[in-house]
Amino acid sequence: MIIDSHAHVILPQERQLEMMKQAGVDRTILFATTIHPETAQNLDEFAVELKNLYDILNGRNNPVQARIDSSIELAQTVKSDPEKYVGFGPIPLGLSYEENLEWISQYILANHFKGIGELAPGTGQVGKLEPLFRASHEAGDLPLWVHAFFPLSFADIRELLGLAQAYPTIPLIVGHLGGINWLDTLKAVRDLPQVYLDLSATFTTMAPSFAIQEYPERTLFSSDAPYASPLAARTVLEQIVPDKQVLQEVLGGNIARLLNI
Amino acid sequence: MIIDSHAHVILPQERQLEMMKQAGVDRTILFATTIHPETAQNLDEFAVELKNLYDILNGRNNPVQARIDSSIELAQTVKSDPEKYVGFGPIPLGLSYEENLEWISQYILANHFKGIGELAPGTGQVGKLEPLFRASHEAGDLPLWVHAFFPLSFADIRELLGLAQAYPTIPLIVGHLGGINWLDTLKAVRDLPQVYLDLSATFTTMAPSFAIQEYPERTLFSSDAPYASPLAARTVLEQIVPDKQVLQEVLGGNIARLLNI
Repeated sequence: MIIDSHAHVILPQERQLEMMKQAGVDRTILFATTIHPETAQNLDEFAVELKNLYDILNGRNNPVQARIDSSIELAQTVKSDPEKYVGFGPIPLGLSYEENLEWISQYILANHFKGIGELAPGTGQVGKLEPLFRASHEAGDLPLWVHAFFPLSFADIRELLGLAQAYPTIPLIVGHLGGINWLDTLKAVRDLPQVYLDLSATFTTMAPSFAIQEYPERTLFSSDAPYASPLAARTVLEQIVPDKQVLQEVLGGNIARLLNI
Repeated sequence: MIIDSHAHVILPQERQLEMMKQAGVDRTILFATTIHPETAQNLDEFAVELKNLYDILNGRNNPVQARIDSSIELAQTVKSDPEKYVGFGPIPLGLSYEENLEWISQYILANHFKGIGELAPGTGQVGKLEPLFRASHEAGDLPLWVHAFFPLSFADIRELLGLAQAYPTIPLIVGHLGGINWLDTLKAVRDLPQVYLDLSATFTTMAPSFAIQEYPERTLFSSDAPYASPLAARTVLEQIVPDKQVLQEVLGGNIARLLNI
């Protein structure tokens, strides 16, 4: 089974299903979105959407109501085709332990989401995730998916891996392979078997090549659609992974085992 | 004709030719390299090569002798198959106007290279390129190819485009589409028709999509091999460019016209 382990809700939904079909993707782990860059018709419209995204990534905006709305959109989408979709639900950054537990109960577990993300702490804000790690453990070790490209530095990523070390039963998915810090990230996760590596948004094919060579059981194919097409992302992996068995695991087996789907 | 507009010398040479053949690339604009990451067998060996590269990109190392040696390696490679290769020659950063002129005469023109690059000023160092712009103009407006991904900020890229504006007869190729600053870069080159956009190392397919939509005559397919495979880079463009005529220009027509090859 081919599983795109990270894509956002795309509008209209027919387009998402068409992209999955084109790439031969059987299932998608679907994430909410508070913006819809795929609806932009030109550069100016796209710039507006992207500014909103960067305001969230940089911690200038932490929209609680928008996350509730996008949770509803996600839950409806997953419900519309449960054979195709598995949901990961969003959560605002900086909640207390009790608030995290309440949110998880109300918006994650009640919606049958299998994990939490995309979490996007800004530079120097990774510590804000600590109460969430605790709450996730309390709620049954829900997997956490953290954006680890720009604006995170390697110091931020190291802090994140410190949390992973402190909560070894919680699966942590490091988004985008650590971005420009992919090499240091690969070295740092050696002894953290609960840490998985998301292969989207890599700017050099050397990054996924080495990642898969070192961690064939912990690397996860994903498109990060709409930011890249599932077909393009799958094609790159098919070109760089010579071993068919390993390719099968990266393209779906690893995430299926992790989420028990 | 399909032209990979930016790749580095790969060892052994058979591998480079094999990658070109696999991707259906007819010609490659070939650049020198002072490191050979493709020879690394494991993560540690690769880390050593990459550290050397980052020392150059960050301006901690500006190896003159290594650039002379890599110029010779490049010239020999181009000479070995002039139907397949066109060379762009390296130059150390920070030479005076006269030193630039002398280097251009001795290592660029004498080797029949068609342009200069990859130039990699560090953060805050773009001003060091000014004497080179002057010398390139004096030498007949040789195209300049500048690395514009990390560690360049958008302030650096803006300064670079200021030089382009001051020397409008010199073709400037902005490498990697400006990296994480691709959107601001796209907006900033609107009135600079001599500025071309290199499409390698993009981490989201939205970047080349919008770049080609806005500037179909100024966007250039490239692999940046060995950092990505020509086939992977070509496949992405074929998936995102619906217009066959535009695709042909991006895959080869634009760079052929620019270099008159």
